[in-house]
Amino acid sequence: MTVAVAVVQLAPVLGDLAGNRRRLLAAVDEAAAAGARVVVLPELATTGYCFTDAAQARALAEPVDGPTVRALTDLAARHDLVVVVGLALLDPEGRLRNSAVLVDGDGPAAVYDKVHLWGREPDVFTAGDAPPPVVATRHGRVGLMVCYDLEFPEWVRRAALDGAELVCVPVNWPDPGRPDGERPVETLTAQVAAATNRVYVAVADRVGDERGTRWIGGSVIAGPDGYPLVVSRLDGSSQTLLADCDLASARDKALSRHNDRFADRRPHLYSS
Amino acid sequence: MTVAVAVVQLAPVLGDLAGNRRRLLAAVDEAAAAGARVVVLPELATTGYCFTDAAQARALAEPVDGPTVRALTDLAARHDLVVVVGLALLDPEGRLRNSAVLVDGDGPAAVYDKVHLWGREPDVFTAGDAPPPVVATRHGRVGLMVCYDLEFPEWVRRAALDGAELVCVPVNWPDPGRPDGERPVETLTAQVAAATNRVYVAVADRVGDERGTRWIGGSVIAGPDGYPLVVSRLDGSSQTLLADCDLASARDKALSRHNDRFADRRPHLYSS
Repeated sequence: MTVAVAVVQLAPVLGDLAGNRRRLLAAVDEAAAAGARVVVLPELATTGYCFTDAAQARALAEPVDGPTVRALTDLAARHDLVVVVGLALLDPEGRLRNSAVLVDGDGPAAVYDKVHLWGREPDVFTAGDAPPPVVATRHGRVGLMVCYDLEFPEWVRRAALDGAELVCVPVNWPDPGRPDGERPVETLTAQVAAATNRVYVAVADRVGDERGTRWIGGSVIAGPDGYPLVVSRLDGSSQTLLADCDLASARDKALSRHNDRFADRRPHLYSS
Repeated sequence: MTVAVAVVQLAPVLGDLAGNRRRLLAAVDEAAAAGARVVVLPELATTGYCFTDAAQARALAEPVDGPTVRALTDLAARHDLVVVVGLALLDPEGRLRNSAVLVDGDGPAAVYDKVHLWGREPDVFTAGDAPPPVVATRHGRVGLMVCYDLEFPEWVRRAALDGAELVCVPVNWPDPGRPDGERPVETLTAQVAAATNRVYVAVADRVGDERGTRWIGGSVIAGPDGYPLVVSRLDGSSQTLLADCDLASARDKALSRHNDRFADRRPHLYSS
């Protein structure tokens, strides 16, 4: 049995909360109409990324029971969806977090606060210190992390060992350029994370131009063999990628009769 | 200051010890003439891979002070080389090992026994249980591992944390096929290992056809940004790839003023 997974790549506008939310909800609605039951949205999808300072971020942040999650809950209930969205969240103690929230028809089922912060994010956000949650949803076991977290193989391994069949990753990948003809190494990192752990990895990147920063727009859904089921056109455009994923197959870590991604590990020889 | 690193991709013939050794030495000689100072050869480079049984492997194996390492030592002394070769080794206790040996002009400087065994290798070889050695050579700090080891990110991380600037990996990558237009995920794994740790990774694969098994011939030298400095033509041919590598640059793990591949790790949150 397969489930259709969608990653939504779009261009949030810094500070345009209402417009960003409207475009997000429309994209989720369209993905649901196309058959998606799991939808992944980018990091900081309602606010944009390049805050001038912490005060601007704070003014744009919302709590987990705020309007974005409420609206996504309604959509999820209507279409039987699991939605993963990246948000600037105000946590219960009033700290700002760069979070991924998993929403289903009953509301937010898990909140993950980005653990590995990028660039100037520490000026704005408090880093999380909890492992990636793995949620047993109606459509499969879903793990969450955010952007730079994915570049730490220890972190993906942890989610996979904890049972994730699909790792959903809202990202904002700034574009450092790359050699001609090469797929972005950020996208390859998602592919290899999938292969190394025999999981599905779904990355929703953003596009656009914000205070001089451009993003790769390198969204991808990689299968447990590490090859993309679908990968973005690298043309800077908003686009939704959709792939049928047999998530239960990711429970089987065997490569053959002889080898197994997990059983072949020798953890007593590894140090963290 | 850069050093020229070569990976030699060729087609050992199962059981033809003398011929394989002669072809290896000729290829090392040619690489040295082309300027290489570090030369990486494939896994099980003198014996071939597809042994009928342990007895055949044992008959072909040699000790670390055997003729292959002696001949490579002579070449290394003559051309100021560091050579990494994959061999079926008879260890001092008489066990067979799937090893990588680092040879310089003084002889073998390190022996590594493959820790993560592939396929039917456990019928033939005893798995190692020591971490990848990292050797301070005249040309830079070189880490060693063999083939399937590279698919465990914990293992590459360990070599990198132990100071490897260049990870040399003799491999025999069997070819499982891949989608049209895709670079083999095995090669991507080497690229992402390099990027994740900001090290150079040099993989020498084999080609040819042996008792029905074919190999990818996916040799690559990846730089600390994860992009190939040079990558094999995927045409099944013997070929030597050469790249100038600024190995000392791999000591610097910074991505920018704000981020660093090692300093950004949160090891107390990782479990092995």
